[in-house]
Amino acid sequence: MKKSLGAKTLAQPTPVWAVGAFDEDGKPNAMIAAWGGIASSQPPAMTVSVRPSRHTYAGIMKHKAFTISICNEAMAAEADYLGMASGKNEDKLARAGLTAVKSDVVNAPYIDEFPLVIECTLLETHEVGVHTMLIGEIKDVKCDEDKLIDGKHPDVEKILPLIFSPGARDYHTVGRRVGKGFDIGRKYLKD
Amino acid sequence: MKKSLGAKTLAQPTPVWAVGAFDEDGKPNAMIAAWGGIASSQPPAMTVSVRPSRHTYAGIMKHKAFTISICNEAMAAEADYLGMASGKNEDKLARAGLTAVKSDVVNAPYIDEFPLVIECTLLETHEVGVHTMLIGEIKDVKCDEDKLIDGKHPDVEKILPLIFSPGARDYHTVGRRVGKGFDIGRKYLKD
Repeated sequence: MKKSLGAKTLAQPTPVWAVGAFDEDGKPNAMIAAWGGIASSQPPAMTVSVRPSRHTYAGIMKHKAFTISICNEAMAAEADYLGMASGKNEDKLARAGLTAVKSDVVNAPYIDEFPLVIECTLLETHEVGVHTMLIGEIKDVKCDEDKLIDGKHPDVEKILPLIFSPGARDYHTVGRRVGKGFDIGRKYLKD
Repeated sequence: MKKSLGAKTLAQPTPVWAVGAFDEDGKPNAMIAAWGGIASSQPPAMTVSVRPSRHTYAGIMKHKAFTISICNEAMAAEADYLGMASGKNEDKLARAGLTAVKSDVVNAPYIDEFPLVIECTLLETHEVGVHTMLIGEIKDVKCDEDKLIDGKHPDVEKILPLIFSPGARDYHTVGRRVGKGFDIGRKYLKD
């Protein structure tokens, strides 16, 4: 039996992403976003929603670029802190002991300690309610070499990305493998 | 050391969502989408990207509503099948033994066997590359009563949502709890 919980943002799984940008003064900064996802396969594009009042927002508007550093279990405390403080008031990356690396493909920094990063140019913005959805074209993805499968694909079991539960406000990470996509459902296909 | 993987849609965690709609003839149908996320907190809104050629797309355009049934470990084979077949050619829900329930708040069906569902009216569409991003306003969320924490919040450890790895094309589910959001990073906050 299903219970109604009301009109709430209770999607699962919800990501925990560090949105990296240079601020208006050129200083690397990052904020945490949980509202976003892939938007298109070709060109590869993604969205992340940011409130215009955020310090990071002005920097993205100026430099027309941002990165997504995927927050993972090993960096959970650092990620959580990035989501609680504002770069207006402090150098968050320095305080958390994190290293900003300037992307070689877009004008934005990513966080070196985070294992998987996505580098985007800002394609456009789109207002949805209180948030501005940033639509970025993915220009490159970089992954720690020791967290790849066959040197090609990011290994989710080694990256161990954080997963946020919007209602309970807990972080989890990825667990057991369930099966192969486009394969485990074959038994239902017509002969 | 990070390795460049190219301009690819390698975000983590990536969801596995059954997008439910009545088709143009009023028959319940569902397709699988991995491209999407929350777009705004107020009004609560989300996006899911669909190719206009999809059978489900025409139904959503006609009825201006869709649902997201969160695919989970227990329903992994059924979800995978929904992503491989088209409702143009067969009654996918019947074939997979799934039950369509008409939402009481929007003109779209959800899948009863999936533990967590989100019911949306279509606010607008937005083209991004080869995909059309559907922006839906969340009108209600419903969860199996036995998968709630304190009767209030969806329990991700009981729902066990699927997580897709776009490169490796594997499904995983949620694993261990890492900590409390807006709490485990407090040690970095200024005194």
